[in-house]
Amino acid sequence: MSSTYLPAGLARRTDSLTSSAIRDLLSLTARDDVISLAGGLPATDLIPVDRIAAAAEAALRRPDAVQYCETSGHRTLRSVIAARESAVRGGVPVPVESVIVTHGSQQALTLLAQALIDPGAVVVVDEPAYTGALQVFSIAEASIESIPLTFTGMDTDELELRLTAGLRPAVVHTVANFHNPRGVTMSEQRRRHLAALADHYGFWVIEDDPYGEIWFGTTESGVDAPPAPIARHSDRVIRLSSASKILAPTLRVGWFVAPPSVCAAVELLKQGADLCGSSLTQSMTAEMLADSAWLDAHLTVLRREYACRATALIAALAAQFGDRLVVSRPAGGMFAWATFLDGTDTGQLLDAALEHGVAFVPGTAFASGAQYRHSLRLSYAGSTPPVLADAVQRLAAAHSAGSAA
Amino acid sequence: MSSTYLPAGLARRTDSLTSSAIRDLLSLTARDDVISLAGGLPATDLIPVDRIAAAAEAALRRPDAVQYCETSGHRTLRSVIAARESAVRGGVPVPVESVIVTHGSQQALTLLAQALIDPGAVVVVDEPAYTGALQVFSIAEASIESIPLTFTGMDTDELELRLTAGLRPAVVHTVANFHNPRGVTMSEQRRRHLAALADHYGFWVIEDDPYGEIWFGTTESGVDAPPAPIARHSDRVIRLSSASKILAPTLRVGWFVAPPSVCAAVELLKQGADLCGSSLTQSMTAEMLADSAWLDAHLTVLRREYACRATALIAALAAQFGDRLVVSRPAGGMFAWATFLDGTDTGQLLDAALEHGVAFVPGTAFASGAQYRHSLRLSYAGSTPPVLADAVQRLAAAHSAGSAA
Repeated sequence: MSSTYLPAGLARRTDSLTSSAIRDLLSLTARDDVISLAGGLPATDLIPVDRIAAAAEAALRRPDAVQYCETSGHRTLRSVIAARESAVRGGVPVPVESVIVTHGSQQALTLLAQALIDPGAVVVVDEPAYTGALQVFSIAEASIESIPLTFTGMDTDELELRLTAGLRPAVVHTVANFHNPRGVTMSEQRRRHLAALADHYGFWVIEDDPYGEIWFGTTESGVDAPPAPIARHSDRVIRLSSASKILAPTLRVGWFVAPPSVCAAVELLKQGADLCGSSLTQSMTAEMLADSAWLDAHLTVLRREYACRATALIAALAAQFGDRLVVSRPAGGMFAWATFLDGTDTGQLLDAALEHGVAFVPGTAFASGAQYRHSLRLSYAGSTPPVLADAVQRLAAAHSAGSAA
Repeated sequence: MSSTYLPAGLARRTDSLTSSAIRDLLSLTARDDVISLAGGLPATDLIPVDRIAAAAEAALRRPDAVQYCETSGHRTLRSVIAARESAVRGGVPVPVESVIVTHGSQQALTLLAQALIDPGAVVVVDEPAYTGALQVFSIAEASIESIPLTFTGMDTDELELRLTAGLRPAVVHTVANFHNPRGVTMSEQRRRHLAALADHYGFWVIEDDPYGEIWFGTTESGVDAPPAPIARHSDRVIRLSSASKILAPTLRVGWFVAPPSVCAAVELLKQGADLCGSSLTQSMTAEMLADSAWLDAHLTVLRREYACRATALIAALAAQFGDRLVVSRPAGGMFAWATFLDGTDTGQLLDAALEHGVAFVPGTAFASGAQYRHSLRLSYAGSTPPVLADAVQRLAAAHSAGSAA
């Protein structure tokens, strides 16, 4: 089949995507002999399968669970999400009409990009950025501008300078809680600053929050939930979240909370995109999110286990690499970010690592240019402490082999 | 919230959608006191809930059913679909790589439109057309051209004349089996003709087939499956189908079968659109589609019941309206198409009908211009014969009230 079968515009829309290092990597790491610290998958062993099965059984007793769903989402689920969102915003009322349920939060990103971004419009992202967002904004033919992350989130001072100099974004996208890949959380002060800039300059903020519930703190910081969402400080903020990381990816339930004009536009686009979501998995999700006693207990287990895994990974890296490797200290989420100080190129290290049976994502996967050549992202979520120790041992062996060569 | 919050391009992309008569109608007909013959929902009482529950229970015993799925779809499901597709094509081998699973077949349409249609490209559709397809092609900013339906499907002779005169479509979309809304099925001869035109002029055919398995014949025609798919006659055909009408809409499992270049492009776009589908509902669907003994028995029941409902609707319409109403004689699918010969405007009739507690879709909903003002689409799928008789009685009362006024 010749490529002349496909229109010219397709290449323009997808060329930047064909070389995604992460996508290629994920297929490599599906090998049984590789311990993968590369993916962004939640821990399979911590997914509450029995509770999910009970929710499926209960849902299938209701006839509406087998038919088409409303495009905006299962009504009960939207109410449950609105109530939880109101709680996280300190009691500010969140009407059910401001919640749209999507097919994972990746679909929310895509539909929001279709609604909010004309080709050529400026979109500001974190540097480094979540690759799934970069992909969506590339398909939307946005002009992508990066603002560096600090240890307290996106550098809003730098953003303000750029805005003063004339930058006019349609959208600013940020992962404010336990950033992927960088791990940092935006401070209360920066949240207020970004919200004020959005109000002043009239752009939308997409506050992408898949990890906000998985907080466990560090020994130094103590154990605290992240600050109130950016959305608490402006109505130009669209907040995204998902059941994938706290319940299970298989539900394919994401959502966003936004003003009515945005919800109406996205609902229309979603009807074209896929008519509606699954009333079965949405009804199951509603039941589990509404079962507070069970959910609190489940989240407590998740937080404790992820904390334990993060600690184990950090300890193993310190033991094997000492001060040749600077490692972030995760206070939540699924990822550690590490940077070699001995000149190791993590792209080259990956080849050796795969030979030694361990995978990670090299830092350049998150860069638009040649940055982060000495950095890597490691997911501790999917592996128990002994497996993490084994993985780091393999990594050290790969590193030694590389140094010796 | 002012509309200046949203970009100009959004209005261009969605303006043609905001007035969808069907969407407004479906919310009206959700009322408990209305018998709806309007929607395209399969019969809730014929959805195999127990089999679905068993499939869910079985799927949740496998750990991969709770995690992310491959973007192209659950491997086993793709194999099962490939095997079934090969059978319907008379044994022509269909490789698993040519099958992509989507979030309902509406998502397949949307992603194919993104892959195959540049803004301004010509897309040919049936006249009247499936409104969901019109919506997708409008969002893709295609230039839409209509070719009338005959009793043997799209008028390929007319299409050939237009092609000879210079029409150069990127895509021709048709519902070849039990057309929505018209009910007709494309003949073997027209299928071969359309395939030959696609090969000669180099366009893609999207053969949209949600109803192909629901064949039951008429007294005159006998009971037969529709002719072999258009895809059997050309490799420029992309065939779409879905589990929604034969198993349950809630699974949100659709798929298409296409050459590798198209599959690769759509897989990339789907990764941006929603990463992947639900491994749970895809694994459930695989199990049910592979359970041939059960599936054959289930399809036999579906066909018998739909035949019975179609007959009941036709008989009731004949009894109430006699020769003032010409009604199609469905040989499969879910819809009857009827046209008043007494000058009744079905848009006006709808208002009276809703007052009398019955709903249908007026013909103009399927027209680009002012055609089909005297026609209506009636779905017999969702109602038992006594309910259909009641619905038609209400319709007759509404009609009499209108004539008397």
